[in-house]
Amino acid sequence: MQGTALKHGIKWRRDSLKERVARIGLPPGTLPVEQSTGATHLQALFYTANTLRTVEPDATGAFKQQLKRRRGEKLWLRVADADAHVLKKLGDFFELHPLTLEDLHSRDQRPKTDYYENYVVTIVQATRMEAGTIRHYQVALIVGSDFVISVQYNYAELFQPIQERIQVPRGRLRKERSDYLYYALLDLVVDHYFSALSYVEERLEELETRAVGRYQQSIIQKVHVLRGDIFHLRRLVIPLREVIRRLEVELPDFFVSKNVIYLRDIYDHIVQVIDRVEVHRELLAGIYDLQLSMANYELNNVMRVLTIISTIFIPLSFIAGVYGMNFDHMPEIHSYYGYPIVLGVMLAIGAGMLAFFRMRKWL
Amino acid sequence: MQGTALKHGIKWRRDSLKERVARIGLPPGTLPVEQSTGATHLQALFYTANTLRTVEPDATGAFKQQLKRRRGEKLWLRVADADAHVLKKLGDFFELHPLTLEDLHSRDQRPKTDYYENYVVTIVQATRMEAGTIRHYQVALIVGSDFVISVQYNYAELFQPIQERIQVPRGRLRKERSDYLYYALLDLVVDHYFSALSYVEERLEELETRAVGRYQQSIIQKVHVLRGDIFHLRRLVIPLREVIRRLEVELPDFFVSKNVIYLRDIYDHIVQVIDRVEVHRELLAGIYDLQLSMANYELNNVMRVLTIISTIFIPLSFIAGVYGMNFDHMPEIHSYYGYPIVLGVMLAIGAGMLAFFRMRKWL
Amino acid sequence: MQGTALKHGIKWRRDSLKERVARIGLPPGTLPVEQSTGATHLQALFYTANTLRTVEPDATGAFKQQLKRRRGEKLWLRVADADAHVLKKLGDFFELHPLTLEDLHSRDQRPKTDYYENYVVTIVQATRMEAGTIRHYQVALIVGSDFVISVQYNYAELFQPIQERIQVPRGRLRKERSDYLYYALLDLVVDHYFSALSYVEERLEELETRAVGRYQQSIIQKVHVLRGDIFHLRRLVIPLREVIRRLEVELPDFFVSKNVIYLRDIYDHIVQVIDRVEVHRELLAGIYDLQLSMANYELNNVMRVLTIISTIFIPLSFIAGVYGMNFDHMPEIHSYYGYPIVLGVMLAIGAGMLAFFRMRKWL
Amino acid sequence: MQGTALKHGIKWRRDSLKERVARIGLPPGTLPVEQSTGATHLQALFYTANTLRTVEPDATGAFKQQLKRRRGEKLWLRVADADAHVLKKLGDFFELHPLTLEDLHSRDQRPKTDYYENYVVTIVQATRMEAGTIRHYQVALIVGSDFVISVQYNYAELFQPIQERIQVPRGRLRKERSDYLYYALLDLVVDHYFSALSYVEERLEELETRAVGRYQQSIIQKVHVLRGDIFHLRRLVIPLREVIRRLEVELPDFFVSKNVIYLRDIYDHIVQVIDRVEVHRELLAGIYDLQLSMANYELNNVMRVLTIISTIFIPLSFIAGVYGMNFDHMPEIHSYYGYPIVLGVMLAIGAGMLAFFRMRKWL
Amino acid sequence: MQGTALKHGIKWRRDSLKERVARIGLPPGTLPVEQSTGATHLQALFYTANTLRTVEPDATGAFKQQLKRRRGEKLWLRVADADAHVLKKLGDFFELHPLTLEDLHSRDQRPKTDYYENYVVTIVQATRMEAGTIRHYQVALIVGSDFVISVQYNYAELFQPIQERIQVPRGRLRKERSDYLYYALLDLVVDHYFSALSYVEERLEELETRAVGRYQQSIIQKVHVLRGDIFHLRRLVIPLREVIRRLEVELPDFFVSKNVIYLRDIYDHIVQVIDRVEVHRELLAGIYDLQLSMANYELNNVMRVLTIISTIFIPLSFIAGVYGMNFDHMPEIHSYYGYPIVLGVMLAIGAGMLAFFRMRKWL
Repeated sequence: MQGTALKHGIKWRRDSLKERVARIGLPPGTLPVEQSTGATHLQALFYTANTLRTVEPDATGAFKQQLKRRRGEKLWLRVADADAHVLKKLGDFFELHPLTLEDLHSRDQRPKTDYYENYVVTIVQATRMEAGTIRHYQVALIVGSDFVISVQYNYAELFQPIQERIQVPRGRLRKERSDYLYYALLDLVVDHYFSALSYVEERLEELETRAVGRYQQSIIQKVHVLRGDIFHLRRLVIPLREVIRRLEVELPDFFVSKNVIYLRDIYDHIVQVIDRVEVHRELLAGIYDLQLSMANYELNNVMRVLTIISTIFIPLSFIAGVYGMNFDHMPEIHSYYGYPIVLGVMLAIGAGMLAFFRMRKWL
Repeated sequence: MQGTALKHGIKWRRDSLKERVARIGLPPGTLPVEQSTGATHLQALFYTANTLRTVEPDATGAFKQQLKRRRGEKLWLRVADADAHVLKKLGDFFELHPLTLEDLHSRDQRPKTDYYENYVVTIVQATRMEAGTIRHYQVALIVGSDFVISVQYNYAELFQPIQERIQVPRGRLRKERSDYLYYALLDLVVDHYFSALSYVEERLEELETRAVGRYQQSIIQKVHVLRGDIFHLRRLVIPLREVIRRLEVELPDFFVSKNVIYLRDIYDHIVQVIDRVEVHRELLAGIYDLQLSMANYELNNVMRVLTIISTIFIPLSFIAGVYGMNFDHMPEIHSYYGYPIVLGVMLAIGAGMLAFFRMRKWL
Repeated sequence: MQGTALKHGIKWRRDSLKERVARIGLPPGTLPVEQSTGATHLQALFYTANTLRTVEPDATGAFKQQLKRRRGEKLWLRVADADAHVLKKLGDFFELHPLTLEDLHSRDQRPKTDYYENYVVTIVQATRMEAGTIRHYQVALIVGSDFVISVQYNYAELFQPIQERIQVPRGRLRKERSDYLYYALLDLVVDHYFSALSYVEERLEELETRAVGRYQQSIIQKVHVLRGDIFHLRRLVIPLREVIRRLEVELPDFFVSKNVIYLRDIYDHIVQVIDRVEVHRELLAGIYDLQLSMANYELNNVMRVLTIISTIFIPLSFIAGVYGMNFDHMPEIHSYYGYPIVLGVMLAIGAGMLAFFRMRKWL
Repeated sequence: MQGTALKHGIKWRRDSLKERVARIGLPPGTLPVEQSTGATHLQALFYTANTLRTVEPDATGAFKQQLKRRRGEKLWLRVADADAHVLKKLGDFFELHPLTLEDLHSRDQRPKTDYYENYVVTIVQATRMEAGTIRHYQVALIVGSDFVISVQYNYAELFQPIQERIQVPRGRLRKERSDYLYYALLDLVVDHYFSALSYVEERLEELETRAVGRYQQSIIQKVHVLRGDIFHLRRLVIPLREVIRRLEVELPDFFVSKNVIYLRDIYDHIVQVIDRVEVHRELLAGIYDLQLSMANYELNNVMRVLTIISTIFIPLSFIAGVYGMNFDHMPEIHSYYGYPIVLGVMLAIGAGMLAFFRMRKWL
Repeated sequence: MQGTALKHGIKWRRDSLKERVARIGLPPGTLPVEQSTGATHLQALFYTANTLRTVEPDATGAFKQQLKRRRGEKLWLRVADADAHVLKKLGDFFELHPLTLEDLHSRDQRPKTDYYENYVVTIVQATRMEAGTIRHYQVALIVGSDFVISVQYNYAELFQPIQERIQVPRGRLRKERSDYLYYALLDLVVDHYFSALSYVEERLEELETRAVGRYQQSIIQKVHVLRGDIFHLRRLVIPLREVIRRLEVELPDFFVSKNVIYLRDIYDHIVQVIDRVEVHRELLAGIYDLQLSMANYELNNVMRVLTIISTIFIPLSFIAGVYGMNFDHMPEIHSYYGYPIVLGVMLAIGAGMLAFFRMRKWL
């Protein structure tokens, strides 16, 4: 059972690697010629400060007409589990670069932001706790001057809170330009890292409590698994810091400069996540070292007991063996006081050994 | 008992994490809708070089009128254990950004400085020794052109010395602008890190003395706990260095440039704290390595004793065993000199073994 | 069998070192005066958007005439397994610097890009899985305003997919300038790193599965070999990141600026490779630590069993030995209940020992 | 006895920490209100290229008159073991900033240079070997356009060589401006680090020689102590590199630009010291690893001997034990050849065991 | 014998340290007042593209007249094993700074380049394999607009290849300005590092082959020595990279800018050397870890054998001991089937133990 998170992680990455290996030699920006999965779900929210209309275009049909914005409307297009066919149609409609489409279609991109003439695309990995392990799901956010497209796989409910907040007429999300919606979505993804941290800290506290007690191989194995989780999380978050920092420096034209403060807020949160992840690594290393030293300690104790017992009794047994020999001529044996004297000598040797051990502080 | 500092740390962070997780999906800058705690304490010091008046507004009432400054007065507002209600009212009065209020309300922010149009807010973590562990308490310092607001939780007495120094008419604190008060408060927080360092060094000296003697699991456990303390301290101080350095570079307009020298002084102190913390880490690692090697050494010694005793007596016992066999026809047994000869052989074997050990430098 | 990858790597590097050592003292840019190998293979593809003609000049002859471009044609010259003679003739024709020729002739250059007045030369190492190990083959790409020369050894089939794509009339490769062909070739080299990664992850998953089970020296040895592979891969890829980044910053005049996006795509891929390689290192270190702690655990278990058995039976054997002595006067021996009493005492001692072990949690 | 250097270091730092803790809450730049120690010694050297007059002002009196320079004279003021009273008077006379005075009075500042309007103050730590340990003494050098003040504690003889060189009429020190004297003093401090290095290398060579031989706990302890010394030295020198580099970049107005070459010379020396210190760390780590592996090796050897002996004789003893049993009906016992056959079997088992060990390469 | 490289290194450094310590307090740029060694050897090569004349001035005499260049001649002055007297005379003639002379005279300078008004001086450490260890010899190259001075100790034959190449009339060395000669000399020094690398890789391959087999203390010791060699090499080369990089950026006026490409070539070689050195470190660490884990493995095996044998026979011996007791009333002893029953029980116990071990996978 243990190691499942890690194995899951490795397996999952290998799948995405195999897909990549299969495409070696194709021109960049090539989408795979796959069957339409039929699973794609589109939801378009057209909103102004006062109006909101929700359209659910049929992904298998010619939905372009349905994506037309009316005057003054902003659009949030939610795309779930899109296949290559739908992505191509979206790419045509929004004039997305083929390389963007390729990124949208893959599921294990490193967090990054790419800048195009009239849009910006940010790839992040959202985390969710599932069956006791941290899994991640790629989220792509494409933001233009009056639209945001969010592209997700397998984790559609992630943006539910924003869905709800945008219902509020004349709310901030409705009044601000599309960059504010983008920040809200990004902020939500980052907030979910705190759930993962919370899970990790719960495990850490549990391990810390048990680790002080005694050496157990199961603790070491749990340390190993948790180390994988922490490393996984770290890998998702650390590149994100640079992504946000660079976005702040190279703010696209269609972003409102006074809203940069929300970007900085997200940046602060990411730095906090990274900070805690580093704390976790250090604590975990501490627990590991403690356990190793405890293993040492227990081995020393075991060996000490063995040595004390052996060292006392082996010489005594030898003496007993000597007087168990069957030689005809062993004068001590016939002496009347032979037996008590030998017993006395044995006692003296035993006591001497004990004194020696006490002197060496082994007892 | 040991490990309490660490466990305290983890538990405390988990509480703050849980609070954060509970707020996932809320817009940034949202304060929790909590009960008024009634514990908030406000103290306003209005001062000029020559005058000083102290007002203690009732935090539960409408205290805005009481915060009005008279002509030429500067204000130091001390806020202790504020709840969300009071923070909102303060935010209205001083025109603080909602994100600032959110930071003021939380208690485990990473040290940082945020720049707003007419104020700067610095978050630091003040340390205090409590029950043998280093605890930290968040302090927020909001500084504008003629006011400083200090926001604290659970550790109101921290700024007592500044409270006393500001009583002195025509003292430096009274004559300078608000940036000087800000430096004084920050300096005090940094000074308290030296108490924590002093505690750590006391522990280190004690461990060093014991560690040279012999291997003890209790030393390793104390190393583990102290390592947690040092790491904790490091985490509070290292981001502060960057905070101060950046403040020096991007000095706000309402800071007096000739006072920058005091900022540099604080910077020097922080660098010294970090420097010592790094020394502590290295020393602790040294103690740990020494203990591990000592464990090795003791194990080697124990094994050597066991091996010497076993190696001498096991063959001798075997010989005794041979002559303890009950075969009818064992000619040696009936020989008159059998017994002394066997004893002599045994002595020779024992002596040979001892010589062998001496040759191998085991004795 | 194990360690072959590493040994291969070391041996191979030593050969290239020996060649270098043999040339100490020669002026830079000196090609060795070697026999013509006769193995050189040249293939020139002259193409415009609409036309394509393929020429295979005889490398041993005077092929310069065959390399003349017609008006508007671009050239991709594929050079395989070139000897010094051919390189010199190519250098004359394309006016390559002697230092470039020296680099082309060597086979173990670190990835780099050198800038000359009218061409740019990029050295990369392409990987291929062979007999279960990652081997690398140097590829040099010389790109001018209307030509690309690719120089390879032993791995001519690498660029087959591009060879096929360039056949398509009016395809992108045919319409774009030579920089696009250069990107396509570089991209292919980088894509092949994903095959190597895939191989590494397969091994890692296998090791992870086995490592959780128990300590085995064969796992440690496989970790050692895989560590060599990962390190090898890392060494090929990490300098490449800098090479690409610098090319983006100092884009030569004859590169089309709007194509830079493809360079960035390659850069993203390289960063992903590096990212995964770092993950592999960490996972491998985790497996190693886990195995070491498992070795510890098993040793502890073995010692505990030994100690328990010895500690119980050694004292009992001693008692049996005492009553096996042949003294004439041993009153207990003649007592009727002597034997059962001694057996009872032995049982009590044994039970006591077991209780002691259970108390110490050894059982 | 061992560990004294470290303990000394810790104790000494704790004293300086306690002093600092005692001053928490005081305004920056506050000197302690201490008793005049009476130990302060002042020596003023007024010099031109041709003239030199030495004055020893009475530190307890009003010495300001004695510090007046005549026309064209430069001043080197040597201050030894100054108390707060004297520092305050000096501060008045030379218009030193209170923060400078605070730095002069403390004794464990990190190396740094502070820039003021008409002077520069550099704090360094000079080392001296004392009783087999490296101790450090703070030296402050204040340099203005025509004066240098050196402030020391407990180590007045440090600058004796400069004292002697300045006696030479028309020597370089006499002709150059005060920056040259400053360089000379700084250079001397840096030169003394080479003595400390020399001490460390002597110890290292000794340890290296012994460490190759065999594992000894005393070596490990000496490694521990030497590691403390090296770390101590490192901490003194590494910040100094940055101090000098920055001084070179931001050369004050009253420094002669052509003399910068002497600053670079000092910089080179510091880099050399750091370089060697890093070498020492690496060598020490090598010795430590070697010793640990040697401990392993010896333990393996001890265990191998124990195992060989036990494994041979324990089964033999068992056989002897079987035939020492007193059963009435043991047919072998009465057989005439029983005894020699059993002896033969024992011999065969012993020989078989030895063969087994040889096969396993344990012998 | 082992460790000689290291000891040699330490001893050699200590000598150079002692010399430095002896000079503490002297003004910078002071040469020691030593006896003329008489060993100095001078060789001046005056050359133009068409002419070459070689002069060997007598170092003990007044050789200045012999160093006069004729119109248009460039000079390469080779100085071997120079004493302070000769250096002073050279310094006068070429107007070298005293600090340069000091650097020329020392023999363990860190690689560096110093810039003076009309010359540049580069210090490097050339390596040579001697008696199985890597030794280094300082080389100083002083280059002005029309002269190069090379100053060496103990390793005069290093520049023989350049000596030969400069004989060729109208060769590149003869036609180019002095910077090209400087590059050629520097390139030769760097090329020799590849010999050292080759030596290290040979050792590594040997160790790798042996290390896979089994744990041997001699391997660990060889790893230790090789680690010293690698570290030594690293220390010589790493500062050189920075030296070359800076020279490229701050190219002196009298260097020909088109020749910078040769400097870049040298830079590439240095980066390759560093790259390989890092590979060696990693490989060596891998071998070390492998050996440690192998030691563990062997210890585990030894202990397992001991435990199996002891655990089987100790209880059996106890049983034999019980029936060897001499009690009068032991009913089993007189039973006819006692002996075979006990033997059977013993067999059963032994078989049970074996089954237990097999279950635990110890067999």
